[in-house]
Amino acid sequence: MTKSNVKPATSKLGVMVVGCGAVSTTFMTGVLMARKGLAKPVGAMTQYDKIRVGKGDDKKYLSYGEIVPLTDLNDIVFGTWDVYPANAFEAAVNADVLKAKDILPVQDELEKIVPMTACFDKDFAARLDGTHVKDCKTRWEMVEALRNDIKEFKAINNCERIVMLWAASTEVYVPINMAVHDTLEHLEAAMKANDTKNIAPSMCYAYAALAEGAPFIMGAPNTTVDIPAMWEMAEKTQMPICGKDFKTGQTLVKSGFAPIIGTRCLGLNGWFSTNILGNRDGLVLDEPANFRTKEVSKLSTLESILMAEKQPDLYTDYYHKVRINYYPPRNDEKEAWDNIDIFGWMGYPMQIKINFLCRDSILAAPVCLDLVLLSDLAARAGKVGTQRFLSFFLKSPMHDYTKGEVPVNHLYQQYTILKNAIREMGGYEADEELD
Amino acid sequence: MTKSNVKPATSKLGVMVVGCGAVSTTFMTGVLMARKGLAKPVGAMTQYDKIRVGKGDDKKYLSYGEIVPLTDLNDIVFGTWDVYPANAFEAAVNADVLKAKDILPVQDELEKIVPMTACFDKDFAARLDGTHVKDCKTRWEMVEALRNDIKEFKAINNCERIVMLWAASTEVYVPINMAVHDTLEHLEAAMKANDTKNIAPSMCYAYAALAEGAPFIMGAPNTTVDIPAMWEMAEKTQMPICGKDFKTGQTLVKSGFAPIIGTRCLGLNGWFSTNILGNRDGLVLDEPANFRTKEVSKLSTLESILMAEKQPDLYTDYYHKVRINYYPPRNDEKEAWDNIDIFGWMGYPMQIKINFLCRDSILAAPVCLDLVLLSDLAARAGKVGTQRFLSFFLKSPMHDYTKGEVPVNHLYQQYTILKNAIREMGGYEADEELD
Amino acid sequence: MTKSNVKPATSKLGVMVVGCGAVSTTFMTGVLMARKGLAKPVGAMTQYDKIRVGKGDDKKYLSYGEIVPLTDLNDIVFGTWDVYPANAFEAAVNADVLKAKDILPVQDELEKIVPMTACFDKDFAARLDGTHVKDCKTRWEMVEALRNDIKEFKAINNCERIVMLWAASTEVYVPINMAVHDTLEHLEAAMKANDTKNIAPSMCYAYAALAEGAPFIMGAPNTTVDIPAMWEMAEKTQMPICGKDFKTGQTLVKSGFAPIIGTRCLGLNGWFSTNILGNRDGLVLDEPANFRTKEVSKLSTLESILMAEKQPDLYTDYYHKVRINYYPPRNDEKEAWDNIDIFGWMGYPMQIKINFLCRDSILAAPVCLDLVLLSDLAARAGKVGTQRFLSFFLKSPMHDYTKGEVPVNHLYQQYTILKNAIREMGGYEADEELD
Amino acid sequence: MTKSNVKPATSKLGVMVVGCGAVSTTFMTGVLMARKGLAKPVGAMTQYDKIRVGKGDDKKYLSYGEIVPLTDLNDIVFGTWDVYPANAFEAAVNADVLKAKDILPVQDELEKIVPMTACFDKDFAARLDGTHVKDCKTRWEMVEALRNDIKEFKAINNCERIVMLWAASTEVYVPINMAVHDTLEHLEAAMKANDTKNIAPSMCYAYAALAEGAPFIMGAPNTTVDIPAMWEMAEKTQMPICGKDFKTGQTLVKSGFAPIIGTRCLGLNGWFSTNILGNRDGLVLDEPANFRTKEVSKLSTLESILMAEKQPDLYTDYYHKVRINYYPPRNDEKEAWDNIDIFGWMGYPMQIKINFLCRDSILAAPVCLDLVLLSDLAARAGKVGTQRFLSFFLKSPMHDYTKGEVPVNHLYQQYTILKNAIREMGGYEADEELD
Repeated sequence: MTKSNVKPATSKLGVMVVGCGAVSTTFMTGVLMARKGLAKPVGAMTQYDKIRVGKGDDKKYLSYGEIVPLTDLNDIVFGTWDVYPANAFEAAVNADVLKAKDILPVQDELEKIVPMTACFDKDFAARLDGTHVKDCKTRWEMVEALRNDIKEFKAINNCERIVMLWAASTEVYVPINMAVHDTLEHLEAAMKANDTKNIAPSMCYAYAALAEGAPFIMGAPNTTVDIPAMWEMAEKTQMPICGKDFKTGQTLVKSGFAPIIGTRCLGLNGWFSTNILGNRDGLVLDEPANFRTKEVSKLSTLESILMAEKQPDLYTDYYHKVRINYYPPRNDEKEAWDNIDIFGWMGYPMQIKINFLCRDSILAAPVCLDLVLLSDLAARAGKVGTQRFLSFFLKSPMHDYTKGEVPVNHLYQQYTILKNAIREMGGYEADEELD
Repeated sequence: MTKSNVKPATSKLGVMVVGCGAVSTTFMTGVLMARKGLAKPVGAMTQYDKIRVGKGDDKKYLSYGEIVPLTDLNDIVFGTWDVYPANAFEAAVNADVLKAKDILPVQDELEKIVPMTACFDKDFAARLDGTHVKDCKTRWEMVEALRNDIKEFKAINNCERIVMLWAASTEVYVPINMAVHDTLEHLEAAMKANDTKNIAPSMCYAYAALAEGAPFIMGAPNTTVDIPAMWEMAEKTQMPICGKDFKTGQTLVKSGFAPIIGTRCLGLNGWFSTNILGNRDGLVLDEPANFRTKEVSKLSTLESILMAEKQPDLYTDYYHKVRINYYPPRNDEKEAWDNIDIFGWMGYPMQIKINFLCRDSILAAPVCLDLVLLSDLAARAGKVGTQRFLSFFLKSPMHDYTKGEVPVNHLYQQYTILKNAIREMGGYEADEELD
Repeated sequence: MTKSNVKPATSKLGVMVVGCGAVSTTFMTGVLMARKGLAKPVGAMTQYDKIRVGKGDDKKYLSYGEIVPLTDLNDIVFGTWDVYPANAFEAAVNADVLKAKDILPVQDELEKIVPMTACFDKDFAARLDGTHVKDCKTRWEMVEALRNDIKEFKAINNCERIVMLWAASTEVYVPINMAVHDTLEHLEAAMKANDTKNIAPSMCYAYAALAEGAPFIMGAPNTTVDIPAMWEMAEKTQMPICGKDFKTGQTLVKSGFAPIIGTRCLGLNGWFSTNILGNRDGLVLDEPANFRTKEVSKLSTLESILMAEKQPDLYTDYYHKVRINYYPPRNDEKEAWDNIDIFGWMGYPMQIKINFLCRDSILAAPVCLDLVLLSDLAARAGKVGTQRFLSFFLKSPMHDYTKGEVPVNHLYQQYTILKNAIREMGGYEADEELD
Repeated sequence: MTKSNVKPATSKLGVMVVGCGAVSTTFMTGVLMARKGLAKPVGAMTQYDKIRVGKGDDKKYLSYGEIVPLTDLNDIVFGTWDVYPANAFEAAVNADVLKAKDILPVQDELEKIVPMTACFDKDFAARLDGTHVKDCKTRWEMVEALRNDIKEFKAINNCERIVMLWAASTEVYVPINMAVHDTLEHLEAAMKANDTKNIAPSMCYAYAALAEGAPFIMGAPNTTVDIPAMWEMAEKTQMPICGKDFKTGQTLVKSGFAPIIGTRCLGLNGWFSTNILGNRDGLVLDEPANFRTKEVSKLSTLESILMAEKQPDLYTDYYHKVRINYYPPRNDEKEAWDNIDIFGWMGYPMQIKINFLCRDSILAAPVCLDLVLLSDLAARAGKVGTQRFLSFFLKSPMHDYTKGEVPVNHLYQQYTILKNAIREMGGYEADEELD
């Protein structure tokens, strides 16, 4: 009946993860356990969600895999880079996210996932002290070394396709510099000139991935692929890119809760968000320069959902503040606390507090899986450049700010865009209008 | 271009409110203040929301009044019944919801809203001791007395149309009895036979309203119009009815928060909801028989949003408990506390707590306004019987359970239905598919 | 210098625990682990607290064991009764409180703790369905069977002394009946007449313990030893008794937080406390008759700390409500939520919310240890009857209500009484005045 | 029987308040209302608390005024300085803390309290822009101008005694500089040399007060009198001083809650405290240099209550973090949120969250009253220098750090010291031993 124009997902997919920490190992372990039937990949849209296709009497609900050709979990091969040499089993145990009973059944497979040396510059993550790093004289050498890693990994593991996923720490904030980041030519020149101020190591990873014909996913708030030069690179290599910053705890709730207020036409006076988290991510963010990157990412969420220009009586001049605090006692089990000051009939104030006792890696892992599978899908569907349909999974969705585009942060608008894209790639009508 | 088939909203609309307590007086005061430009009717969809009509390039966002002919706030005339004789000004002051500065500018108008004697049976609200009641020997006499009240009110105030709104307390739970509540014939017989067990006073109000050609809105969880006999009466009189239970604090949040969990395919182990409230509503609900009515209403919300049959891995056997507690210290400023036990990747548990410091009447008042204006609209549009498009405003939306219909509790599904109905009545395409 | 008149703690102490559930097995496992140096008995005053003795320059801080002769953990032998036959190892695993790594090192010792059949009456705990029960025709037969159990246990294990601890479920509320519970003679007569209404099974345990020369500790809110007949029995046998209801989560916080308010002379308008808990204790309390027992116990706490007669401007007519809700998703990890409405300068209101994510058995286990060691100490010190110095550990401390005595619930007053008693038994001056 | 050696409180007491903002006007208004019987001074120990005197059978409970001669509220005359010229009535209305009905009855009296021009240096409070300031060329000129103000005020109002209270904003952090702050000689030299870096304006206020024979109270966390030079000045003038930082919201709770944990011998892994506040105090603290002053003050609280050296198993290496955030939506109604990670039996973790919706000025006003009355009492009792018995009211109690003294932050230890001091001044035995 319907017909997808997407290339089938044959053979192996190499999933190359930058960083082999809590998020990465939770993601890998869960996939390995799930394909043995020993764990459920809860939270992954590609594994659980069902999308309506057709209308009225023709309406039916299909899972993603029934609509488009997704890579099977059994066809995934994992690779990784890290500044520490511990293999994925050791790293998973160190991360202390999963219980022994949820790791041990796949110990053998995890032990075989041994990090390659990382491209690292301590100026971009002062709190990390790993030494399992490549000795590169310039950023361009980093690119070349990484391309080599990819080629070798692909050959050894007999992979048809590669996806690269950044699940490493947040780098220090790199302001967009239009003298460097504007064109591919400038970017490459800066890499060769070893402009260590404007070229973050993550840019070398992204460049290498695209150069090798692999989609690139930015899971941290780094601006890596959020620059015109990289968009040009994606065009040139005909590859999809997406980012940035996995939408996991507080922002997930915020992007879902703000619509409740907006839909009911309640007013907003202020929203205060604070986080405490204790894993390596928290440690890195305790450095003000790294936090800055994150803060910019987190603040934008609300502003694009509750808009003064649309409802001046309700959303003018509300006060929005986001704080992140390093707090080690609970490790990966981060916690968010939100105070929301709303107002109703005749302007009378009310308060809502949300306390989310979440787990960073448990929420991020299914997002990793979805972004990997859907980026690979996008590549096979011939979709090039920034993949806005993946905004659903991201705190700070990429958009072409040079043309004044605005990001979509509203959870249900993002969901509509996601569903329409899946429908379309599956040969169905993309029939949901974005309200 | 488009053309609405709805009769215009000419002349006066009589809004007859059962109960002149906190909710009623907050509603009335706000409307009177708003039409003087002294307060904003925040939270009212009819006053603030904008609905998309058209698609693609033709897409535009219109307010309700631009799509369909709504009654102007200036054309509303208020009437009320209560078991206490205090006029609406005195009652508003007693209710202690609004500050003096928000009542005094309309004191004159409020003082003229003097309650008619109520039809009351203490067996249905043991905690109330009002004596401003009609002396009726049978339920049928109640109906006749109320019909007379409506006729007089309409004539005196020169109203073209009437809407009746129940904003009084929750009555004791009246189980649906298919020997009495099944047909209009049986219902009328029971009223005449003064079957005080099966015929709640609220049924007399509803019957009287319909008999006089007025839509009836049930704002409490009473089963009043939620029975086949009343559906038959609505058909016979060609009138719309709707109910039940204003969706205000905790349930509003629940019906908006559960979709976040469901949309992200996270699992649910349990949801515990507790409320503390101190106004007259809380006092009545402190009586177990009255609470029962409310509990049944509140529990259903979740079950129809997160469904085991659709996602057995995620929503099988979660534990849902709702508690309401009378707690006088904060009067109308009720408070809800929810604990939500979710699980993610590989089944790992996380917790969310929501603490809502809300105000019962501040949230209910705009719902009153919307239900009144939209019920009146529905009547002019020739819509008969249960108005499912108003589910958005209700905790326990009416549905034909005799045919196995299920209610829609998902906030955004309710919103879609609402928008489609407005579009349709406005002569636009009802183009949103219900997912 | 100082000289204690307490008999030394020589030889073995048999600790016979009624109920082999979550609390009991956590207590036992912790003691066994601690004496191997594999766990720390955190929360136990006898193991951690230091008491000042002497004044001014002579002031020094000593641990309990340095002041009085306490039984060494190595000298404890555990016995138990339960309605289920599982041994303490199996029961600890089922209880799912402790991780495997905290149980396995003492598996052998736990497996040897095999429950004796229980004296049980389903009318007193409808939700329990255990069948590992004695077949007794009368309450008096229960007493005799239990006395026999104690004698045998003592002989087999070569114990010099026995302490009996009730760590089983809450029974249904047994109102104090002064025709039965007033004198030992009446009590014994009722046991022989098998008055199953007035004689709870727990009374048979207590009677048997005292008859065999063992102190009895009531850890549930049962009125078991809170009756004149049992006080007489304690006098007759020259034994100490104490109870009732381990002070663990919410009440511990309440008895410590109310003094903050009281000490700063802030006013109180209301205090609402709700609990969710999912272990066997929660299941039993879900039965209204059993909850009633608990509620009476929990409500009294506040009333004796913040008193209207002492501060009428501050503590007159505050509203205090306690709710307990069975909520299985988190098992032993119960949760308390308190809302406290205070007022300050000129009567202005403020709110405090306390959310305690606690663990029932983790908080109860050290209380078990302290009560056992201190009851045994009291026996060796010749202290007879109700031990008020143990109020510190109890939600609803026993007191002679027939003489109008009031209980002490204020955490720091209780602590003062505890310290004075230890000082006194240790031959030091009991020099703290109770404020 | 007992006999106080304190001079009686005859004639008028001039209370000169630095800063005429929210705290000051709430304090003044409450005192004026209370002496008319129109409001209750809730939270003031001097007005409500009762102290035990005597022991055993001689024990009785007396209010402060029955033990020592306190100034009557009717004998208070208020004066103030501020950088804005608004009188106390206007300032109280602007502060928006109290309702109109609680201010209007004393409008006349408040209007007569007109600020004198302030001694101000914008470098010490960058966010304030008031211009109602004295034109002084040096810090020494400030001192002289303020001494003149005091003399005039005393004469005009016919006051026998003066107390000066700093209730103005937090200044930027002034590190203690032992080349300037060590001796009175150095301090005076620096004032004359106009050393604007080391001499905060608040030091001029304190110096002037002492020079005029008035006790000085530092209600902000400024180090003003927390330096040896000022201790010398207090000795020289034979005056009492006290500080610093009113203990109101979060720290009050912390200093009362930490003892619950400590008393029960529970362990601590971490304590995270965050605050949101929106009044002028919050605005000033939003400036990092001013926040630093506050943070130092707030962190010390916990460390002196739960001490690793006393209980290494329980309190070693816990993580304590305090954050203050400017958040305007709720003005004076600040809010604190604490997360406390404790552990119990065998090291198992539990969590406590405390959410305090408090009001800055409502909690500070009674502290102002107590500190004023008790400082005046101390002066009449001939007590000189730092008044440690007032630690109860202060976040960061002054102590002689040059001699290695440690502050007392434990609420109940502070209370014991307070009671003993009152007893002693009243001629009773100071019979409570500090544990």
